[in-house]
Amino acid sequence: MSDAFPPPLARLVEALKRLPGVGAKSAQRMALHLLDRDREGARFLVESIGGALDDLTRCPTCRMYRAAEHCRYCSDERSRAGQLCVIESPADLLAIEQHTDYRGRYFVLLGRLSPLEGTGPDELGLDQFAELLRSDWVREVILATNPTVEGETTAYYLSEMARAAGIPITRLAHGLPVGGELEYQDRGTLSHAFSGRRAFEE
Amino acid sequence: MSDAFPPPLARLVEALKRLPGVGAKSAQRMALHLLDRDREGARFLVESIGGALDDLTRCPTCRMYRAAEHCRYCSDERSRAGQLCVIESPADLLAIEQHTDYRGRYFVLLGRLSPLEGTGPDELGLDQFAELLRSDWVREVILATNPTVEGETTAYYLSEMARAAGIPITRLAHGLPVGGELEYQDRGTLSHAFSGRRAFEE
Repeated sequence: MSDAFPPPLARLVEALKRLPGVGAKSAQRMALHLLDRDREGARFLVESIGGALDDLTRCPTCRMYRAAEHCRYCSDERSRAGQLCVIESPADLLAIEQHTDYRGRYFVLLGRLSPLEGTGPDELGLDQFAELLRSDWVREVILATNPTVEGETTAYYLSEMARAAGIPITRLAHGLPVGGELEYQDRGTLSHAFSGRRAFEE
Repeated sequence: MSDAFPPPLARLVEALKRLPGVGAKSAQRMALHLLDRDREGARFLVESIGGALDDLTRCPTCRMYRAAEHCRYCSDERSRAGQLCVIESPADLLAIEQHTDYRGRYFVLLGRLSPLEGTGPDELGLDQFAELLRSDWVREVILATNPTVEGETTAYYLSEMARAAGIPITRLAHGLPVGGELEYQDRGTLSHAFSGRRAFEE
């Protein structure tokens, strides 16, 4: 289809199509927007991608992205809360920071236990996690892996490690999503919501 | 909101948000996708944007983008059809190339007549258009500006130029969009569809 385009334009459309949620039509619209209307924005995008690729590294402690030497998520102030939240991905960390009041420490697994995909304890950096568990500031491990089979398996494995270290463990609550209607919930969600029911507070 | 992000990540999210149709949520998803899962794609995107900005120039004849010296839309082969289609934007040209069998020549206005926005004949390159009208290969001018008030005004202005040059003029048909339901069409579309009705062919 893009055979009809001048090659540099066809290449730009191809590159934009690799972004998640971007089809051929949107990619074309983005490409022409950058060329016709926002060349400055195009240069900003080039610099920002380059900057992110070059300047962001993994924090060796929490495995989240950090710029240069300092990790904003591993500060002493955050340690003081005594909480360590384990999540699967950087996107989970950003979601928690944006939508909750949690301001404790994190550990990013960058995956979940999955023997089929060859993801074991090594890939998830569980040595580093064990080291964190030995820090004297940790007073609660919050397991926030996804509520999927693999996420639950991972949570179980992590809970065994925290239990061995003698640290209290919590797991994010399961139940009805806010705004979700009862009749449309799947069996697992509904049975979790029932078994996890709490005293009604007025 | 993105105060919580490491600065290079916040900047990348900002840059992606400038793309059309991309909100905060998608921009964040795209940024993490590029960093976590497709760093090669990120570099490809950087090179493609740079390449498009640097290598695409305006064809001095049709005002479409072209790579280097050659304009694929101004070839002698296309001139042989004798047709010159006038459109408002590069996106219109790409839409026609992708969705129709038209393989004649083009002239891209890069706008429409709009006294309020200060867009007059000079901004639309109508000197170049007049020069094209003097080419001996032009046997039909196809007016394909948008069916808006400004597009119609522009079409009228162009038609006067083509008429003065003695060249037959056509305008894209107006009427019901394929798949569009009658009861949801606006007054202009419906009255165009009525007044432009054609003999029924079995």
